[in-house]
Amino acid sequence: MDRPIGIFDSGLGGLTVAREIARLLPGESLIYVGDTARVPYGVKSADTVHRYSQEICDFLVAQDVKAIVVACNTASALALPRMHGQYRIPLLGVVEPGARAAVATTRNQSIGVIGTPATIKSETYPQAISRYLPEATVQSRACPLFVPLVEEGWINHEVTRRVAEIYLGDWRGASVDTLILGCTHYPVLKGMIQEVLGQEVTLVDSALETAQALKAMLTERGMASPRPRGGHRYLTTDAPQKLHELAPRFLGHDLDQVELTDLGLR
Amino acid sequence: MDRPIGIFDSGLGGLTVAREIARLLPGESLIYVGDTARVPYGVKSADTVHRYSQEICDFLVAQDVKAIVVACNTASALALPRMHGQYRIPLLGVVEPGARAAVATTRNQSIGVIGTPATIKSETYPQAISRYLPEATVQSRACPLFVPLVEEGWINHEVTRRVAEIYLGDWRGASVDTLILGCTHYPVLKGMIQEVLGQEVTLVDSALETAQALKAMLTERGMASPRPRGGHRYLTTDAPQKLHELAPRFLGHDLDQVELTDLGLR
Repeated sequence: MDRPIGIFDSGLGGLTVAREIARLLPGESLIYVGDTARVPYGVKSADTVHRYSQEICDFLVAQDVKAIVVACNTASALALPRMHGQYRIPLLGVVEPGARAAVATTRNQSIGVIGTPATIKSETYPQAISRYLPEATVQSRACPLFVPLVEEGWINHEVTRRVAEIYLGDWRGASVDTLILGCTHYPVLKGMIQEVLGQEVTLVDSALETAQALKAMLTERGMASPRPRGGHRYLTTDAPQKLHELAPRFLGHDLDQVELTDLGLR
Repeated sequence: MDRPIGIFDSGLGGLTVAREIARLLPGESLIYVGDTARVPYGVKSADTVHRYSQEICDFLVAQDVKAIVVACNTASALALPRMHGQYRIPLLGVVEPGARAAVATTRNQSIGVIGTPATIKSETYPQAISRYLPEATVQSRACPLFVPLVEEGWINHEVTRRVAEIYLGDWRGASVDTLILGCTHYPVLKGMIQEVLGQEVTLVDSALETAQALKAMLTERGMASPRPRGGHRYLTTDAPQKLHELAPRFLGHDLDQVELTDLGLR
């Protein structure tokens, strides 16, 4: 099973998932697609997010990928449930692994979820959590300014801290003992969110958990790559140089090359 | 000339322009298109903004509009120069009227421009200003967080004030005596920007000036509507209910109906 794994996100945030997959599965070849021409997904409707996700999956299937990781919480929440069974290859989202990790972590069954307006509105996280732990209490909250703040590069910035306090301050010392970072941009703000909430709250970042779920699936199905090291391709639908500039923030290292793609739509 | 006027923006900000046009030209019928499925344009490349703008203009031409107002600074800056001469009907942007208004306002020939990263990077405003006033000194600056702050509804908010201070504070008491609000979202923050800069700086909002330029053009060419009152249609490419919710902030009144359009692309 030498074929690559497809990974996509509305933009750059999914690189945090790609990084964990590359760490855990160094033998796999990866094709990352960031839909930067239509970013963000988190403020758009389920129909539109579904259509965009389908177009990217069709493109990745045409690249002969053996599995697709939907490395975007909004697409995982809104589009993935509608796409299951539609492709012959397995599709893996970030919501289920994140929900499972939170359920394994919580001691008082009180779990918080933060994400984009679209992800929170979909209630996909509370539904997934209640499948694993029906007695759990879930509080969810949209944090629409976190993504633009990360993209502005204001990571350790007084304004970002103040926004985090406004969004999350009342959860400090409250019942929630586990918080799902339900957007792939948020791990970049992990340190600050932890400070605002206090050390008693455990933050769950779906990236690592998703990489582990992918590894388990590939092993189970005998689909793992036999090679020691796979190649990585990075594609965006707009402005490849922006991925170049911002990639280190999410990926932890520079990128050699970023390709522009029209997803075969034109 | 009973045909409608087409107006478009990447999202909702262009409604500030539509409002001025409706006030100044009550006899004209208007078709407003907000490209909310692909919003924002301000962080995307010139090629992508050009393609999106062309698709909307093609759609508006198919609706038999007699003129098109590009009520989006990014599209006016990046796409309009490439589209001139491509359509048989006149196309009017917001950059030229804004630049003319600033030149008419400044007393010390020192003009500031704020806008999206794409608009500022294009240098369209400095170029337009220097055509009217070659001796002008122009300082431009991108303010990427203003749009998400407005969309979050944090209009008179401490965080927005702090962001405005960080972006613009050093212009207070400095040489700039005129500031172009080079993004249709910014007029909503006019009061706060004025406080940060002080009363000595005159803020120029392209919306009114664009409506006046449109009126002059229609009169000159004998294209004005003979009717006393025109109808208004509002269309978006995604989530019409969001336009419904946010329209009063930009338009000053509620909307009866918002239609969903795929721009004839599917």
